[in-house]
Amino acid sequence: MDNFSFYNPTRIEFGKDKEQQIGAILAEHGIKKVLLTYGSERIKRDGLFATVSHSLRAQGIDWVECGGIVSNPLLSRVHEGIILAREQGVDAVLSVGGGSVLDSSKAIAAGTRYEGDVWDLFIGKGEIASALPIFAILTLAATGSEMNAGAVVTNEVTKEKFAINSVHTFPRVSIVNPALMQTVSRDYLVYSAADIIAHSIEGYFTASMQPGIQSRLVESVIKTVMETTEALLADPMNYDARAEFAWAATLALNGITYAGTAGFSYPNHMIEHSLSALFNVPHGAGLSVVIPAWMRWYQGRNPRQFQRFAREVFGLDTGEQGIAALEAWFNRIGTPTRLSQLAITEGDLPALLTNLQSNARWFGLAESYPQSVLAEILALAR
Amino acid sequence: MDNFSFYNPTRIEFGKDKEQQIGAILAEHGIKKVLLTYGSERIKRDGLFATVSHSLRAQGIDWVECGGIVSNPLLSRVHEGIILAREQGVDAVLSVGGGSVLDSSKAIAAGTRYEGDVWDLFIGKGEIASALPIFAILTLAATGSEMNAGAVVTNEVTKEKFAINSVHTFPRVSIVNPALMQTVSRDYLVYSAADIIAHSIEGYFTASMQPGIQSRLVESVIKTVMETTEALLADPMNYDARAEFAWAATLALNGITYAGTAGFSYPNHMIEHSLSALFNVPHGAGLSVVIPAWMRWYQGRNPRQFQRFAREVFGLDTGEQGIAALEAWFNRIGTPTRLSQLAITEGDLPALLTNLQSNARWFGLAESYPQSVLAEILALAR
Repeated sequence: MDNFSFYNPTRIEFGKDKEQQIGAILAEHGIKKVLLTYGSERIKRDGLFATVSHSLRAQGIDWVECGGIVSNPLLSRVHEGIILAREQGVDAVLSVGGGSVLDSSKAIAAGTRYEGDVWDLFIGKGEIASALPIFAILTLAATGSEMNAGAVVTNEVTKEKFAINSVHTFPRVSIVNPALMQTVSRDYLVYSAADIIAHSIEGYFTASMQPGIQSRLVESVIKTVMETTEALLADPMNYDARAEFAWAATLALNGITYAGTAGFSYPNHMIEHSLSALFNVPHGAGLSVVIPAWMRWYQGRNPRQFQRFAREVFGLDTGEQGIAALEAWFNRIGTPTRLSQLAITEGDLPALLTNLQSNARWFGLAESYPQSVLAEILALAR
Repeated sequence: MDNFSFYNPTRIEFGKDKEQQIGAILAEHGIKKVLLTYGSERIKRDGLFATVSHSLRAQGIDWVECGGIVSNPLLSRVHEGIILAREQGVDAVLSVGGGSVLDSSKAIAAGTRYEGDVWDLFIGKGEIASALPIFAILTLAATGSEMNAGAVVTNEVTKEKFAINSVHTFPRVSIVNPALMQTVSRDYLVYSAADIIAHSIEGYFTASMQPGIQSRLVESVIKTVMETTEALLADPMNYDARAEFAWAATLALNGITYAGTAGFSYPNHMIEHSLSALFNVPHGAGLSVVIPAWMRWYQGRNPRQFQRFAREVFGLDTGEQGIAALEAWFNRIGTPTRLSQLAITEGDLPALLTNLQSNARWFGLAESYPQSVLAEILALAR
């Protein structure tokens, strides 16, 4: 087990009706005015916005709206949010949405307190010394952003999808009400399942030091995601399945399962970030295409862990059987496993490989994933 | 899954040589003078005290010693610590030891800031509104106290072993260096294993709402404890086994595995607290006696979970087989499973039952565990 520091100060308020407490929670933290970030106007139709604004008003908390944040969130919107936050003198950001809204909120929170261009913080030109306090009401469980300090944003000019991470960008409080997720579309449910599984397996397979207890925790998350996804496909209103799915998403990336592991990397996310930066595919859909291809390419480098995965998750004997079972499961739940299903063709590969090169540098994987290897993995996903 | 709040702000610094950073960590928190709590004088012989004092001195941090804290820590020593902390005007408590030292430190930290008698905080006569900041260097992994807000202390006058729990008594930083635990005796290793398993199964079996994902996490902890205990009995210097054992101890009681569960209780701890309050048996040794007896008495109330336990932990079919397998494992590692092994005889039972009655009230279990039931369970442990 490697030496590690674990620190995660985010308070999770999990369960039914918890969003009604948002005003009281902000008041408890001394907040008077928030930048209220969100995605589509759906929250105004489905009553969530009304609940939130009622709760804020009851505590005398003012807000400024910053809507229209899209999946694979864009730097331009983050810039706009920062200008708004500064002009309006808000003292916190309240994210009402999924991982994209929350990640944008973290970037806005850090960018508002940073003198230069917020993109500096993504490319190592500047450091996050402070951020506005961040609060969240989560409407989609997938990214784990509700209980970690990371945020991924796409620079649509440079076509780069990069991340920030700082002790200042942990949400203070994240409200996770699984009932708010009952209207998530079937597509986004299965993409989310692929995302959570990706978060789980990146470290599990690539770590040079992977303690047995951490493998067990990861397998617990994966088995729960598979079981609850199937339950939700059968009945989207199954609250308990929705709740376990959401908690699994949080656990997959709140640092607990990575503690004491070493030498891990995020190759599946690296490849997927290029897919969504260039072709704007849903993140989870990109991941379910990349994962089986990457697993086939990688398994010879860590055969024992692939065998363990097959045995513990599927009750199968060989690494290859485990990969095939996961791919079959992706197909069964209806998340894509081939580039062609994302409408990415042979002709797109050169641009993809070029984008992947700068991406690989950012991920620190340029040496292990040269062009030839990336081409090989993409070929396995064709 | 039940509604829950999860908040755990303790920073864990885990790994080799981390205790050398204690001075820097305290300085980072603005601490100038600490009450240094510890147990036996062993830390002065084995070099740990020298390392700590060197690290404090390097940062100009002053300390006052408060040693001699025993297992099943006593209220009298907590009183002495509070007087010392006040007289000397320390601004933090630094616990160097196992769970007993840390629990005493939490009680001292809360008691120093409380006007009345600290025992008020244990019996609900007073509330913890504040506490001195708490820092810890852990030398024994078992209680999980390093990453939770709980503290258990025995009032030797009233023979009550009760607990406190408050958001103010989370350690700020806990240093967990598994190498410091390599000299833990064989006996205390196996008692600790029983303690961690007890923390894991109390909720697992008694919760009226026990989500599958949480059962999986608990089983991961139990399997890790069993595997690493056996590895450590074979080779006490096995660092990786020591590390996984320690991390399992932390996970068993840091709140993660209890999130979303409901209606659970701590009957095994309730019974054991009377054993150690009256007969001063090691906490883990008391637990390994209580657990199989309690399981046999309780299993009919939750047969599916006992079957699950047998299957997932031991690969066996029936609940009874699972209980027998755990009892056999306790016997194999050498932790007691019978009251007679603790030198508690038939003649002690009346006093024990009397003590258990007030204990059961404190645990909120007086109704479910009347005298007749307690006698039945104790009979199964004879």
